[in-house]
Amino acid sequence: MIIVVSPDATPDDLDHIVARVEETGRTAHLSVGTERSIIGVIGPDDPTLQDVFEALPHVESVHRVTKPYKLVSRDFHPADTIVEVGQGVTVGGVELAVMAGPCSIENEAHIFDAARAVKAAGANMLRGGAYKPRSSPYAFRGLGPEGLAYLAAAGAESGLPVITELMSVRDIDAVCRYTDVIQVGARNMQNFILLDEVGKVKKPVMLKRALSGQIEEWLLAAEYILAQGNPNVILCERGIRTFETAYRNTFDVNAIPLVKELSHLPVIADPSHGTGKVGLVTPVAMAGIAAGADGLMIEVHNSPEHALSDGAQSLTYEKFGIMMRSVAAVAAAVERTLTGVRTPAAVR
Amino acid sequence: MIIVVSPDATPDDLDHIVARVEETGRTAHLSVGTERSIIGVIGPDDPTLQDVFEALPHVESVHRVTKPYKLVSRDFHPADTIVEVGQGVTVGGVELAVMAGPCSIENEAHIFDAARAVKAAGANMLRGGAYKPRSSPYAFRGLGPEGLAYLAAAGAESGLPVITELMSVRDIDAVCRYTDVIQVGARNMQNFILLDEVGKVKKPVMLKRALSGQIEEWLLAAEYILAQGNPNVILCERGIRTFETAYRNTFDVNAIPLVKELSHLPVIADPSHGTGKVGLVTPVAMAGIAAGADGLMIEVHNSPEHALSDGAQSLTYEKFGIMMRSVAAVAAAVERTLTGVRTPAAVR
Amino acid sequence: MIIVVSPDATPDDLDHIVARVEETGRTAHLSVGTERSIIGVIGPDDPTLQDVFEALPHVESVHRVTKPYKLVSRDFHPADTIVEVGQGVTVGGVELAVMAGPCSIENEAHIFDAARAVKAAGANMLRGGAYKPRSSPYAFRGLGPEGLAYLAAAGAESGLPVITELMSVRDIDAVCRYTDVIQVGARNMQNFILLDEVGKVKKPVMLKRALSGQIEEWLLAAEYILAQGNPNVILCERGIRTFETAYRNTFDVNAIPLVKELSHLPVIADPSHGTGKVGLVTPVAMAGIAAGADGLMIEVHNSPEHALSDGAQSLTYEKFGIMMRSVAAVAAAVERTLTGVRTPAAVR
Amino acid sequence: MIIVVSPDATPDDLDHIVARVEETGRTAHLSVGTERSIIGVIGPDDPTLQDVFEALPHVESVHRVTKPYKLVSRDFHPADTIVEVGQGVTVGGVELAVMAGPCSIENEAHIFDAARAVKAAGANMLRGGAYKPRSSPYAFRGLGPEGLAYLAAAGAESGLPVITELMSVRDIDAVCRYTDVIQVGARNMQNFILLDEVGKVKKPVMLKRALSGQIEEWLLAAEYILAQGNPNVILCERGIRTFETAYRNTFDVNAIPLVKELSHLPVIADPSHGTGKVGLVTPVAMAGIAAGADGLMIEVHNSPEHALSDGAQSLTYEKFGIMMRSVAAVAAAVERTLTGVRTPAAVR
Repeated sequence: MIIVVSPDATPDDLDHIVARVEETGRTAHLSVGTERSIIGVIGPDDPTLQDVFEALPHVESVHRVTKPYKLVSRDFHPADTIVEVGQGVTVGGVELAVMAGPCSIENEAHIFDAARAVKAAGANMLRGGAYKPRSSPYAFRGLGPEGLAYLAAAGAESGLPVITELMSVRDIDAVCRYTDVIQVGARNMQNFILLDEVGKVKKPVMLKRALSGQIEEWLLAAEYILAQGNPNVILCERGIRTFETAYRNTFDVNAIPLVKELSHLPVIADPSHGTGKVGLVTPVAMAGIAAGADGLMIEVHNSPEHALSDGAQSLTYEKFGIMMRSVAAVAAAVERTLTGVRTPAAVR
Repeated sequence: MIIVVSPDATPDDLDHIVARVEETGRTAHLSVGTERSIIGVIGPDDPTLQDVFEALPHVESVHRVTKPYKLVSRDFHPADTIVEVGQGVTVGGVELAVMAGPCSIENEAHIFDAARAVKAAGANMLRGGAYKPRSSPYAFRGLGPEGLAYLAAAGAESGLPVITELMSVRDIDAVCRYTDVIQVGARNMQNFILLDEVGKVKKPVMLKRALSGQIEEWLLAAEYILAQGNPNVILCERGIRTFETAYRNTFDVNAIPLVKELSHLPVIADPSHGTGKVGLVTPVAMAGIAAGADGLMIEVHNSPEHALSDGAQSLTYEKFGIMMRSVAAVAAAVERTLTGVRTPAAVR
Repeated sequence: MIIVVSPDATPDDLDHIVARVEETGRTAHLSVGTERSIIGVIGPDDPTLQDVFEALPHVESVHRVTKPYKLVSRDFHPADTIVEVGQGVTVGGVELAVMAGPCSIENEAHIFDAARAVKAAGANMLRGGAYKPRSSPYAFRGLGPEGLAYLAAAGAESGLPVITELMSVRDIDAVCRYTDVIQVGARNMQNFILLDEVGKVKKPVMLKRALSGQIEEWLLAAEYILAQGNPNVILCERGIRTFETAYRNTFDVNAIPLVKELSHLPVIADPSHGTGKVGLVTPVAMAGIAAGADGLMIEVHNSPEHALSDGAQSLTYEKFGIMMRSVAAVAAAVERTLTGVRTPAAVR
Repeated sequence: MIIVVSPDATPDDLDHIVARVEETGRTAHLSVGTERSIIGVIGPDDPTLQDVFEALPHVESVHRVTKPYKLVSRDFHPADTIVEVGQGVTVGGVELAVMAGPCSIENEAHIFDAARAVKAAGANMLRGGAYKPRSSPYAFRGLGPEGLAYLAAAGAESGLPVITELMSVRDIDAVCRYTDVIQVGARNMQNFILLDEVGKVKKPVMLKRALSGQIEEWLLAAEYILAQGNPNVILCERGIRTFETAYRNTFDVNAIPLVKELSHLPVIADPSHGTGKVGLVTPVAMAGIAAGADGLMIEVHNSPEHALSDGAQSLTYEKFGIMMRSVAAVAAAVERTLTGVRTPAAVR
């Protein structure tokens, strides 16, 4: 850590800063410059000291020189992590993962129908929400445990591993019983108690980026899970909140290559939430794969205008099939595979 | 709700939209314009229909014309809500509430000392965190139940009601046992299960705005709590996340008068988190009161450079005393009182 | 336009609003609802009336139902615009445009060398700045007219049309004399006088999106140019400013398909500015093409560590060659061509 | 400047970085750490070297330790700048500056009427736009030179110095002839040629912050003007662009005390643009003064619903009078004066 001292600091002020650094058990290396003095802090790394040093009188700024996360960092684990999610499906290898299905599990027949449809189009995982985070307390909030059972059964019938959102530690046992992958949603990226708890179970966890989550915060949230002993973490970029109102969220395509560079964890692109508009889902899905994402999460509904949630961003079965063929062509260009899609060659 | 249809819609397309509106039990009022047709939806209000109508083919945009919240709205409850928090202290009346104390409860002696100091300077509530949301899993995360007991005892000794953060439904009983006001932090503004649960208890709740929480989402989060039967909600503006990196957060002063106009709930300003910099806390506290806030939440520490968290934004006891006198002068200008401050007149 | 009136409006208040609408020469269509009354404004479209109606007492909100731009809209011009930029190169067709070169024109030899290098790697346009917008008045601000002459000569030698930034109406004659395409930079997207002036010349104009430019504002800025009689406008997405600090800007990939849907104008992706980091340029270039961009603008320098500006985001000649081969593979997947790249097939 | 090198750098890589530093005529001070090596750059300060060093292989980050501006910095000019704007009015002293009037100069009678009204309520400067930046090319863009003449005459009659916006170097002579203060608008904050030109004239300049202008960029924009020899610069905070859609802009109250700390230049608050909503103007004006602003810029119109621009944020004459009395009460609390307001004492 490097401490920059303001020009008005006296020698006594500098001594005080040095003493506080040494009080932490570290060594202070002072260089007195013509304009500003700089103090290098030598010793074990502790990012939380930044706040301590910033509170010192005459300190102008404090610069960290190391990353605050370890277990998720590629520095400490150079090889890509490949997460096994069941039914022989993996996330993070050459084969892309495509998680598709309705926003909400609406009833038993509906999720079975969706499972067959997305499987037929080439998806290799089934998504569906039983606990739905809704801005309004008056909106449909999901079927709960009943929905979980339908989802698991639909996945089993179609041979697709399933993923569903866990919103609270209250429901962790129910969700773990039925799902192959636990989704931690954007609004819970910094629900630290929930992160601790999903870190203690063995299930793979997909951690979505918060609406205003910085890359470093997102990786630290993943670090919470790994620090509790669960290495099976998948990241998911789902769009951030910006000033632009033409779409629900702004898909941050930069995040994909940067996260792949900083971390060994796989990254999924969610263009459904990342755009919020049906017409943008396919091109942004293609962009995500071109940028290096390890797979996609896509909302699909047999009749979006009757969906209980997220209709405006859900693809019909037919549009999903078209999307998959377009994505398969891009996948081939980046040397990834999508084995469930029958005729990618025909597209080109 | 108003549905705007794109110019390429045929009469059949319009019929389809009208039919879907009528399927919801509402009446569709079609006006065919030269450029675009518009459909007014007449009938019971349901904001979640926006998503349904946006999913219809040829729908260009859907405009809500009512607010999605009811119980928190001033339309339905014109008079200001005044929340009683114990020890005769209220939030929302002429007298300002000042909640002050350390970021974290560090040990028993420390919180007792802080309680006496902030009381002496004119604060009428004591704050302190026993459960701390920290970006890094390796940072100090609070003393937990032990801290809660110290906080309650320190408040009792000084005659100050206390406020502390609840991070998870897991800890709701412990927190309710010891605190006068439950704080729901910015990262949990949309932790909907937690909102439900604090709605079921009788304790006052202070709900902080999320880092990227829109005013409407914030009021809907408060609606969750009221909808469960708890009317004692206090809002807290604590700064939002923007592109500006010169401060930790950007205090959104516009939010204060707007929320007072839209809702009957009291609003507290938190310039400690709203700026993240000691030097800005006092002027922004003064601005918050000038804009109509019902009180302040301020981080105070006997030695910020030794604080276990948030040192860079904590005022010393001395600086807090100076702040209180400056705030008292502004309070008088807006016809509010701060009875704990001994000599506001002397300042002017 | 639709005017939503607040519930407290009396019949007299409604009459006043209706009268003001009629004063503008339009017809007001009033529907009195149970909660709110709504007034439809029938007659010629004028987006600037929104502000007038919002100023009326008891008006809660005003909703536009038409787009504020005409000439740039695909509604009025369904076919894609293809801009001819000279030397047989076009922007907007099947063949992608790749504009490459140094951030600044540094000296004569340097730009000639860059022109040959980017041409060899498959670029079909040469970029270089003679007038540089710099945050600091003390930074290198470009060679001015001397640089323009070098750029034109380098382009002529290599057979590449050239593009360079015009920062002020002061320099319009000099820039028009030497360049094939005038670039209007992000900081000038709403320099309306400059937009008027480049609208009056015949040269193609590439209009970059502002750091916080909304899609609608960007299209309106293009409308300024078309409204003056110049139809040869190319749009360029170059990243927006968000809360994320891990990159210089956030490339907004959503903008590409949305702008292609709303407008007939071609769109270029600039991943150099859109990321600000060398390591992200290639994957984001690939993403831009996958999402439907009509080409790329890329900063290339023989020795980025000696560049007079933007070194941190400039590709070496070698890295640019690798990027072009990766982009060519994605181009083939989306049925676009990049004829300058010799061996795309070999990549796959 | 401090260069942080990534852990994978070899001794040769370090030598290469050191050599590049020395090539710039500076000394490199290398400290090899256990995790990362750090290189301190000793010698004359040049912020543009940051980009050069970031382009070096194996450089992880570069930290500036000095501020990139000099002339605007309080470090080099500790005393507050007080700008004389004519008619005995100053900006930056104990007396607050209040610049009020219509958004646009609409006709001769209108601006004379507005001048008398705002003067009567206590304003000491007259504002009005003759050149209007409008998002749409089809909106009213101002009366141009004719408007300037009306404004100057109205100011002269009422004894108020005038301020008006200059949008382009094209109009600098006309604007300088008629105005006392040149306003550089938010969209031109980084129109560097315009900044150079207003730096060359003697007139005071009020520089508004850009919609997404960082504090450092804003101060650097002011540095452009001072660097050309014009020390009479006034800053103006007018709201920034954020994710919040409930108001047109988000007034950044933090900016006021921070800019006063970093710079000696006076700062004006513009709550009209900072909120975009009539109902928020008065509380945010009060907040701005409480936070330390040196004055206000307020849009006032005799009939906002007939204003040619910005009606939704314009105060009527009556509301402006009420606002002035509220502001006067806050001014007294912060030991500032507003001599034009007749009865501040009566308010309290």
